[in-house]
Amino acid sequence: MTNPFMERAIELAVQNVRSGRGGPFGAVVVRDRRIVAEGTNVVTSVNDPTAHAEIVAIRAACSALKTFRLDDCEIFSTCEPCPMCLGAIYWARLQAVSFGGTAADASAAGFDDAFIYKQIAAPIAERSIPFRQIMRDETLGAFREWAQKPDRVRY
Amino acid sequence: MTNPFMERAIELAVQNVRSGRGGPFGAVVVRDRRIVAEGTNVVTSVNDPTAHAEIVAIRAACSALKTFRLDDCEIFSTCEPCPMCLGAIYWARLQAVSFGGTAADASAAGFDDAFIYKQIAAPIAERSIPFRQIMRDETLGAFREWAQKPDRVRY
Repeated sequence: MTNPFMERAIELAVQNVRSGRGGPFGAVVVRDRRIVAEGTNVVTSVNDPTAHAEIVAIRAACSALKTFRLDDCEIFSTCEPCPMCLGAIYWARLQAVSFGGTAADASAAGFDDAFIYKQIAAPIAERSIPFRQIMRDETLGAFREWAQKPDRVRY
Repeated sequence: MTNPFMERAIELAVQNVRSGRGGPFGAVVVRDRRIVAEGTNVVTSVNDPTAHAEIVAIRAACSALKTFRLDDCEIFSTCEPCPMCLGAIYWARLQAVSFGGTAADASAAGFDDAFIYKQIAAPIAERSIPFRQIMRDETLGAFREWAQKPDRVRY
C-alpha cells in the first residue's frame, strides 16, 4: 500500500543524497492529513550529529506550530528511528510513527543504528563509551530548585 | 570528589531553573581540559523538545569546532543522559561521559527518562506509541542511491 506522506519522505531522502546534503533519510510531520514540516539528514553538511531527518522534521514542526508538544501529529520516516530519534519522538509526544526500512537496513547501508540500540540496552559498565557517575548529591540541588519553583513549566 | 566541569554544569542547571529558561539540567563539552561548549535544557522556552542540555551542548561544540565528530571531547552532564541524548552522544563519538543524577532521579523530579528507556527496550508492538512499517521496498531505493554515490560523506 502506498502512502502519499511516505512517498514524500522517500522523495526527500533521494533528493538529499543526490544533492550531497547528507544521508539517505527523509521524514515528514503530518497534522490533519497535511504535511506541517519536512526533514532530511544533514549531519555532515551542517556539522550537527543530531541532524537526523526525524529530529530536523520535529524541530521544524515545533517551530512552525509554536509548541514543544506534537500530540496531534504523526511522523513518517523512510527508516526506523534510531534511539536518538525514538527518544525525540517520545519527548515530542507524537501520536504515531510510520517507517519504511529497519534499523538493520540502515546498518547494512553503513550507519550505526543497530549498534546504538545494543549500547543503550547494555548496562553502563559494558558500554563502548566509558560512563562514570560523580557528584550526584551536588547535582540534586538543581532538582530541588526545580521542585520549589512555583511557576515551572512542566513537559 | 568535586570536578570543575561538573561544578560548571551544576551552575548552569541552577541558573537555568532560576531564569525560567527550562528544566534543571546542564552540560558542558570539554576538550584538552577546557570547556568548548555549554548547554542547558531549553525545551519549553525555545519550543524544541530536542533541546536537552546534552543536545544543546553537542550542537554548540560541533558548531564551534566545525565538525560533526567530537572524538577528542568528553561531556559532563548533571544527569544521566536520556535515550535521545545517549544516542546523540554515540553519534557524536564522544570519548567519555560523566553524569551526576540518575534517570530515576530525573523521573522522581517529573521527567520521563525512565519511561522512555523502557519504551526503547520494548518490542515495537508493545510500545505506547503505535509504530507501523510501510513501503519498505520503496524506501530502500534511497539506500541504493547512497551506495552508488562515489563522493558520499560517511559518518
